[in-house]
Amino acid sequence: MTQIKDTAIEPFLDALASSAATPGGGSAAAILGGMGAALVSMVCNLTIGKKKYADVEGDMKDLLAKAEDLRHRLTGMIQEDVRAFDTVMGAYGMPKETDADKAARDAAIQDALKQATEVPIRCCRLAREVIDLALTASEKGNLNVISDAGVGVLSANAALRSAALNVYINVKMISDKSFTDGKLSELENLLAGAEATTEKAYDIVKGKVS
Amino acid sequence: MTQIKDTAIEPFLDALASSAATPGGGSAAAILGGMGAALVSMVCNLTIGKKKYADVEGDMKDLLAKAEDLRHRLTGMIQEDVRAFDTVMGAYGMPKETDADKAARDAAIQDALKQATEVPIRCCRLAREVIDLALTASEKGNLNVISDAGVGVLSANAALRSAALNVYINVKMISDKSFTDGKLSELENLLAGAEATTEKAYDIVKGKVS
Repeated sequence: MTQIKDTAIEPFLDALASSAATPGGGSAAAILGGMGAALVSMVCNLTIGKKKYADVEGDMKDLLAKAEDLRHRLTGMIQEDVRAFDTVMGAYGMPKETDADKAARDAAIQDALKQATEVPIRCCRLAREVIDLALTASEKGNLNVISDAGVGVLSANAALRSAALNVYINVKMISDKSFTDGKLSELENLLAGAEATTEKAYDIVKGKVS
Repeated sequence: MTQIKDTAIEPFLDALASSAATPGGGSAAAILGGMGAALVSMVCNLTIGKKKYADVEGDMKDLLAKAEDLRHRLTGMIQEDVRAFDTVMGAYGMPKETDADKAARDAAIQDALKQATEVPIRCCRLAREVIDLALTASEKGNLNVISDAGVGVLSANAALRSAALNVYINVKMISDKSFTDGKLSELENLLAGAEATTEKAYDIVKGKVS
């Protein structure tokens, strides 16, 4: 019987379920995106080298390279999310005895929140790219594993919308309006069309497997 | 700095991305569901014991017990999915020299496919329950971690729709129409309302964090 070695997903889920503040939704969003990218890669790896799919071989190799790059960037964000959280917590922990203390603390908090906002917004960008790759995989991938493109696109879309929540949270606490307007407008652009592309890819897959 | 120990998510994603047939979309669906349940648990664990949320303490304890039970059943399905796949592959590998061989092989394949269909349909059932729990978490959970309920519901809904694809795939190859009609009708019931509940929970969370 096939045994999945080293999946070790349970220790991560134990940590996620616990009352520790991290890993939390930010890390989960990065993993959702990474899982989406991994499933696109799986479709590519099971299409490349098959005679029947020789005409899409080049496309699949290109898709695989992009998906693997995105996957590694997304899983790298798990630690980045934890680090950003720690930086914000550190700023909140600064002394607030004197007015000078308070000013320095406020500035450090605002700075940390801005940095922390970069993590989920980057997660949104990467997840949006995975959605587009999953659409291509659903169109051109090996029919025997096409459902994995469907799972991949759902996972990537969940990543995008999850990371969006973390953008909203951070932005709400940042007083620099030109910064927050810029981030929210970028986020709207990333979300625009993501749902439609996700449903398009899912419907293609559902049509092929039903 | 906080370090996430033993997350070990990367070896799993490496295996997922590879050209090995398992783990594939079925395992990914189970993990999506498990992640959804873990995030509901996290919201509960960070709500229980807080004075501000004393009035929902009982609800949260109940929710936590249900979410943890679902989480362990969902992560257990990763291996079940692999096992079901191996059983189907084993049946396909049976001899087909004589007519008797062929009949025995066909019967074994049909039997294995029926068993294999139970795995994704059970995953759908469990994911549907996680969606409902996440809605309660979004309504009653600690505001400071409410976004995790939003990530949880997206993850659980992706699990449900992912597992549904694997139901469609199996059902297509099963000749016993009363069996397939029964499974497809149960699936439609599970999908009905899942999207609306997911969007309701997500909107509640988005409203609270924006």
